Amino acid sequence: MIIVMNGKADDSDVERVIEKLHEMGHKVHISRGERRIILGVIGDVENLASVPFYAFNGVEEIIRILKPYKLASREFKDFDTIIKVKEVTIGGKEIVVMAGPCVVEDEKQIFETAHHVKALGAKILRGGAFKPRTSPYSFQGLGEKGLKLLAQAAKETGLAIVTEVMSVNQIDLIAKYTDIFQVGARNMQNFVLLKELGKLKKPILLKRAMSATIEELLLSAEYILSQGNYEVILCERGIRTFENYTRNTLDLSAVPALKELSHLPVIVDPSHGTGKWKLVSPMAKAAIAAGADGLLIEVHPDPKSSLSDGAQTLRLDTFTQLIKELRPIIQAVGREFALPTEYELERMKN
Amino acid sequence: MIIVMNGKADDSDVERVIEKLHEMGHKVHISRGERRIILGVIGDVENLASVPFYAFNGVEEIIRILKPYKLASREFKDFDTIIKVKEVTIGGKEIVVMAGPCVVEDEKQIFETAHHVKALGAKILRGGAFKPRTSPYSFQGLGEKGLKLLAQAAKETGLAIVTEVMSVNQIDLIAKYTDIFQVGARNMQNFVLLKELGKLKKPILLKRAMSATIEELLLSAEYILSQGNYEVILCERGIRTFENYTRNTLDLSAVPALKELSHLPVIVDPSHGTGKWKLVSPMAKAAIAAGADGLLIEVHPDPKSSLSDGAQTLRLDTFTQLIKELRPIIQAVGREFALPTEYELERMKN
Amino acid sequence: MIIVMNGKADDSDVERVIEKLHEMGHKVHISRGERRIILGVIGDVENLASVPFYAFNGVEEIIRILKPYKLASREFKDFDTIIKVKEVTIGGKEIVVMAGPCVVEDEKQIFETAHHVKALGAKILRGGAFKPRTSPYSFQGLGEKGLKLLAQAAKETGLAIVTEVMSVNQIDLIAKYTDIFQVGARNMQNFVLLKELGKLKKPILLKRAMSATIEELLLSAEYILSQGNYEVILCERGIRTFENYTRNTLDLSAVPALKELSHLPVIVDPSHGTGKWKLVSPMAKAAIAAGADGLLIEVHPDPKSSLSDGAQTLRLDTFTQLIKELRPIIQAVGREFALPTEYELERMKN
Amino acid sequence: MIIVMNGKADDSDVERVIEKLHEMGHKVHISRGERRIILGVIGDVENLASVPFYAFNGVEEIIRILKPYKLASREFKDFDTIIKVKEVTIGGKEIVVMAGPCVVEDEKQIFETAHHVKALGAKILRGGAFKPRTSPYSFQGLGEKGLKLLAQAAKETGLAIVTEVMSVNQIDLIAKYTDIFQVGARNMQNFVLLKELGKLKKPILLKRAMSATIEELLLSAEYILSQGNYEVILCERGIRTFENYTRNTLDLSAVPALKELSHLPVIVDPSHGTGKWKLVSPMAKAAIAAGADGLLIEVHPDPKSSLSDGAQTLRLDTFTQLIKELRPIIQAVGREFALPTEYELERMKN
Repeated sequence: MIIVMNGKADDSDVERVIEKLHEMGHKVHISRGERRIILGVIGDVENLASVPFYAFNGVEEIIRILKPYKLASREFKDFDTIIKVKEVTIGGKEIVVMAGPCVVEDEKQIFETAHHVKALGAKILRGGAFKPRTSPYSFQGLGEKGLKLLAQAAKETGLAIVTEVMSVNQIDLIAKYTDIFQVGARNMQNFVLLKELGKLKKPILLKRAMSATIEELLLSAEYILSQGNYEVILCERGIRTFENYTRNTLDLSAVPALKELSHLPVIVDPSHGTGKWKLVSPMAKAAIAAGADGLLIEVHPDPKSSLSDGAQTLRLDTFTQLIKELRPIIQAVGREFALPTEYELERMKN
Repeated sequence: MIIVMNGKADDSDVERVIEKLHEMGHKVHISRGERRIILGVIGDVENLASVPFYAFNGVEEIIRILKPYKLASREFKDFDTIIKVKEVTIGGKEIVVMAGPCVVEDEKQIFETAHHVKALGAKILRGGAFKPRTSPYSFQGLGEKGLKLLAQAAKETGLAIVTEVMSVNQIDLIAKYTDIFQVGARNMQNFVLLKELGKLKKPILLKRAMSATIEELLLSAEYILSQGNYEVILCERGIRTFENYTRNTLDLSAVPALKELSHLPVIVDPSHGTGKWKLVSPMAKAAIAAGADGLLIEVHPDPKSSLSDGAQTLRLDTFTQLIKELRPIIQAVGREFALPTEYELERMKN
Repeated sequence: MIIVMNGKADDSDVERVIEKLHEMGHKVHISRGERRIILGVIGDVENLASVPFYAFNGVEEIIRILKPYKLASREFKDFDTIIKVKEVTIGGKEIVVMAGPCVVEDEKQIFETAHHVKALGAKILRGGAFKPRTSPYSFQGLGEKGLKLLAQAAKETGLAIVTEVMSVNQIDLIAKYTDIFQVGARNMQNFVLLKELGKLKKPILLKRAMSATIEELLLSAEYILSQGNYEVILCERGIRTFENYTRNTLDLSAVPALKELSHLPVIVDPSHGTGKWKLVSPMAKAAIAAGADGLLIEVHPDPKSSLSDGAQTLRLDTFTQLIKELRPIIQAVGREFALPTEYELERMKN
Repeated sequence: MIIVMNGKADDSDVERVIEKLHEMGHKVHISRGERRIILGVIGDVENLASVPFYAFNGVEEIIRILKPYKLASREFKDFDTIIKVKEVTIGGKEIVVMAGPCVVEDEKQIFETAHHVKALGAKILRGGAFKPRTSPYSFQGLGEKGLKLLAQAAKETGLAIVTEVMSVNQIDLIAKYTDIFQVGARNMQNFVLLKELGKLKKPILLKRAMSATIEELLLSAEYILSQGNYEVILCERGIRTFENYTRNTLDLSAVPALKELSHLPVIVDPSHGTGKWKLVSPMAKAAIAAGADGLLIEVHPDPKSSLSDGAQTLRLDTFTQLIKELRPIIQAVGREFALPTEYELERMKN
């Protein structure tokens, strides 16, 4: 950690900061420049994280050298984390497609979608039973009934499940049905929830909040990891910017950045990331080209009748088209995708 | 609601949208322009909120005319909501100052602060017992011990209490001690929490999330109001922008905007809003000049030793100075502030 | 155009707006709802663009249906604009790579770079002679000397040139040397400059300003087109957001969005878009996967000694690596890239 | 300057950076920590500004200690810059009101406005003759005819003039009429223009660009100052954020921040800052409470017929009301405002 004293700091100001550092058990290097005095503390400065040096007279700037997260960092663990769920591995050579409706509505909808996406190579079925909606007057999900439908569709197709948890008191119920817990963007800094999820033995798909920096996303992952659950999947789903043509601005540069800073798998949600179904396919392809380990895609047999996020949802046929366009990109980046047989592809057309 | 069909929409596209509108029980006005067809639905269109018209062929734009919130709007209630807590009224002519440390640390800290801010006219004591911290390695609060200290300090000074609730399972415990529940910025869209708070009989101080629009803040208030709790205090505390000199960008224009759109009281937190104690005083004055009903200020007897947010915290003497500078502004905008006696002010100096 | 009158608007308020619309030569459709009155004006409403309806009593919202740009829109021209510069076509099936140093420094630097990028399939040489620098104390470019070096390197290699113009009074000089004029992000709304460039017969590469919406970028293109110069190349180069790990946030969703809204070619600058050379390659690949027509890449034989933007600049060998990784992506999206011979690739390694 | 080497940097990486620093004439302090090596360069490091250390192997972070601007900083000049224009001083104890229409339209409009604002204590008349408009189809100003009308109205009322310059080739013409040159937000980084304005002997009102940080605003001021023109007035006019209820987000915390960092006067434009005339008055009051030295306000006798920005423009009577509300705030912060006589105020009502 480096503490820069401003030009007006006098000796007693400097002395008081040094005293505090000594009190906390640190050695201090002092560099006196013409216009600034710089204090350097080398080594493990964790216990200084909460010391408000800006409240000391004469302090101009505090510069922390080490990253504030550890378990999530590549420095802590130099090889990629690979998460195994049922027969699929996330974070390895395989590209994982998680697909399904925004929210589970009825048996027909979820079974039809499950069969379709399964045939096209998806390995994980997504679908919301508890939905965080901006307005209290919007459809909030079917609750346990939705979870049951999801579990039945997954069982019949052999898909694994990912579904959203919004609150600590939903954990036990959802744990009975899901393979992966999803933490939505609005709960990325619901620290009480993160801590409880850290005590589970199931993977957590953690979505970046719409105003979270890359560092904050990794700190939220750290909450889960530090409780003993090492299976966290990071998800870029668009950040909030001034641009309003798209629902969010999908920050694909976060993909290589996260892969560089962390060993955790990174997937991309181009549905929420753009808010427009026509942009889902180009951005899905771009995500894979940028190095993502997988995709989270909203698919619905009839988006026109869907109860949530229909504007960004692919139909079954447009999803088929996406997978077709995706395959050469996956090959181009040297990744793998368990392709459905030609028979199955043919069947999809009918 | 208005639906704009794009230039390429054909008759059957238009027909399908109209059919859906009829199916939902609405009359449709059709305006055919040279390059666009516009469908207007007049009246109460709540049941259309979840229909994903963008998923229909040929739909270019959906324009909702009515605000998506109701109970929080001035149209619903044309006079200001005034909330009474102990002897203080929030939202009336009086300017309410809520002050105290970011987090309750020990008896000396909270009692010393409580006595000081009370003497200077503050009516509500703030202090965190459960703290949402970005890093899992930061101090997370004293829990119930903190609540007890807060309650004792409040009792001795006659101040009311506001403290943060982070999760549904903390509500019962906190309700035993606090007068007002605070929902922090990171939980503004924790809808499970909002719904539960809507069932209480105590006021809720709802902070704007760092990436929430004014409309989203009002929709979150609507979650609480729609459950039957009409006592919501809105709080502007800075939004996240590209500027990094300040911790957040305090959006003071939200104050007159919220007062125009809603009947709920609006207060401002210049401590989190700026992140720098030197900016707290000018922004507190600006907030009152812009029409705020009150302020939420971080004060600590010794910010240098505080365990959280010391950089933005006022010392007792700088808080005294703030109140002195604030008084003429409060008078200038025709508001009131229950001033401490000269004797008390004198005592503060020693 | 649609004008929404608020709930408090009385008959005379409505009358005054209608009068104004009649005065401007328009027919008005009136829809009276329970809580709002809506006025619709169908047809060409260009002459209403400057009428400040918000200044009329009772007006709640103005909704413009038609896009404010025309010549740049797909509605105006339904087929892609293809721009031919020397032997390269921009906006067709071919992927165009524009590469070179941020700023021209000396003969060795520009010639070495030119030969290298040429051998790897680049068709256009970039290099700044006049540089907009945030600080007045940074190197501002070599001026005409830089243009001359650029022209010599281009001549020797057969590459075309793109270089930045910052001001109207530089146009004549730069026109003597360049094939394409680049308008930098900071000048995207320098309307005096745009108008003058609209009178030229050379293509304009128009970079998106760091806080410009997609619509504003198209309106700036419209400035050029409306003066008679139809050869505009749009360039996404990152927008400014709260994220500070990257220099800018590269908005790749702008690529398919611009291709949908406009017929103009779209290229991407991953160097400025990320600010970090390690992210250039993944984002270049993602840009092509998203549908970009080309790339603008900073390359320098020795970034460590470069006088500008060294942190985001590729070395010759990392540029070679980029092209190798790019080729399969280009094929995967069905585009073409004039590949260098194996002999040349081999030569590059030495 | 501090250079942090990452955990993987080896001795030769460190050596190469040190060599470069020696080559540039600097002494280096080396601190070896457990996980990082930190190189400190003390003293004047201007010549390192352009060295791209990030391009060196093993460099993790570059931290610049000194501010990149000098002449604009309080360290360079510790007392406030006061600018005298005709009889008004800007940056002193007096609050300066600059008011007038967005754009000069005709004689009646500008004379009526000039007389009105003069009578209410404004000292400077604003009005555009050359207007930067987002769309090429919007009214672009009257040009020299507008300047002439402005000059006549100023002469008759004794007001000084501020008007916008968009391009170097307009400087000579505008200089014949104006007292202060305004640089609009879109030209804040038009460095060619800034340099030319730095050679003039007239004050420059420099508006913050909508995506400029406080530091970038000061660097743009530095461009002007470094050419010898020390009379720069900084203007906060709102930044671009995700919030779209207001046209921009008026960043009032920039006012005390700029006053702390710089000696230059700071004014606020609440008209562009909010885009809504109803918010102008509360934000004007807040600006003064936050410490601004003056205001730039759009006023028009008939905003409904104005050719630009009517939605954010005050009428003559609402401007009168603003001044009445402003007076007590000005007194509350201990500033002065040359009040019009009661006779004049009375006259305004009629």
